[in-house]
Amino acid sequence: MSEKTRPLRTDARRNRERVLSAAEAVLAREGSAASMRAVAEAAGVGLGTIYRHFPTREALFAAVMSTRMLQLAELSGELSEAADAGAAFFEFFTAVVDNAGRMRAVADALADAGVDVKTDSSDVSGAAAALRTALGTLLERARQHGRLRPDLHLPEALALLAAMCLAAERHQWDPAPRDRALAILFDGFRPR
Amino acid sequence: MSEKTRPLRTDARRNRERVLSAAEAVLAREGSAASMRAVAEAAGVGLGTIYRHFPTREALFAAVMSTRMLQLAELSGELSEAADAGAAFFEFFTAVVDNAGRMRAVADALADAGVDVKTDSSDVSGAAAALRTALGTLLERARQHGRLRPDLHLPEALALLAAMCLAAERHQWDPAPRDRALAILFDGFRPR
Repeated sequence: MSEKTRPLRTDARRNRERVLSAAEAVLAREGSAASMRAVAEAAGVGLGTIYRHFPTREALFAAVMSTRMLQLAELSGELSEAADAGAAFFEFFTAVVDNAGRMRAVADALADAGVDVKTDSSDVSGAAAALRTALGTLLERARQHGRLRPDLHLPEALALLAAMCLAAERHQWDPAPRDRALAILFDGFRPR
Repeated sequence: MSEKTRPLRTDARRNRERVLSAAEAVLAREGSAASMRAVAEAAGVGLGTIYRHFPTREALFAAVMSTRMLQLAELSGELSEAADAGAAFFEFFTAVVDNAGRMRAVADALADAGVDVKTDSSDVSGAAAALRTALGTLLERARQHGRLRPDLHLPEALALLAAMCLAAERHQWDPAPRDRALAILFDGFRPR
């Protein structure tokens, strides 16, 4: 059986999660040159443990990315039933921007390894399409609840989301200035 | 005397301007691979005329860029005395975003030629600092006139300007969706 289909024992699953979260932290700190050895040290496991879960450095980084995408998808599912539809839309928008800032190093590492995440990884491009759909669902619901301006449509919202994601990727915003910038933008999204 | 200090005769100046505007159009159409020959054809002048004004392709593209920057600086000067301080701020913000969309091909052409406009060209980085100062002046004046929210400060405004410029560079926005996105953002800038 492949690693994907075999149910992992609890300790193996815990190790896998620990390696993934260590990899994300090491990538954020050291950028796309982060080594498997540095990830092993940060996770407190041996190199052998890492390679048992992830046969290559690229497989590890791709897993970091798809785990994040999965978390965003789960979040959008929860938020689509939240009582405050406006807050739900804004929370998801913020989570995607936050994610873009974190994923920069991951995307760079994959690109360095010859994997263009925009075109090569069907997992990631499928996840991006899922994010667009999720944003559309949350936007529609928030607008119906009167929490967004009636003339706000998905194309503008996606363009503004892309702009904020590009800035987050490029400038590695700290949370405080990023949240001030988002607060201003979100006031523009609200009905007047 | 250098080309910079010698006063150009009227027909020479007209040719120079025609070459610059043709170069911008050709760069926008053909991207950073645009040739001097294509620029000469678009301008309706001979190759010799181009090379008399601009000894290299890089010199031509750098001149396209600094001409644009100069136009923005002139615009900010005019706008700093406009009757409607709010409209002046929004007009300048829009002009900078518009400029970023056009300059993508120019910046790419220079980078392809080994000129990193962010670090190598003191002309361009000086112009960028001047743009930041100009935005700060227009923002301060618009806020004092009560046309911007009192808690809008230059760092957030610059971060949002950078975000919109990155999106304009990347996506080569058409004016209509770009203006819808900016209108939403500008409503966020206004006092409620």
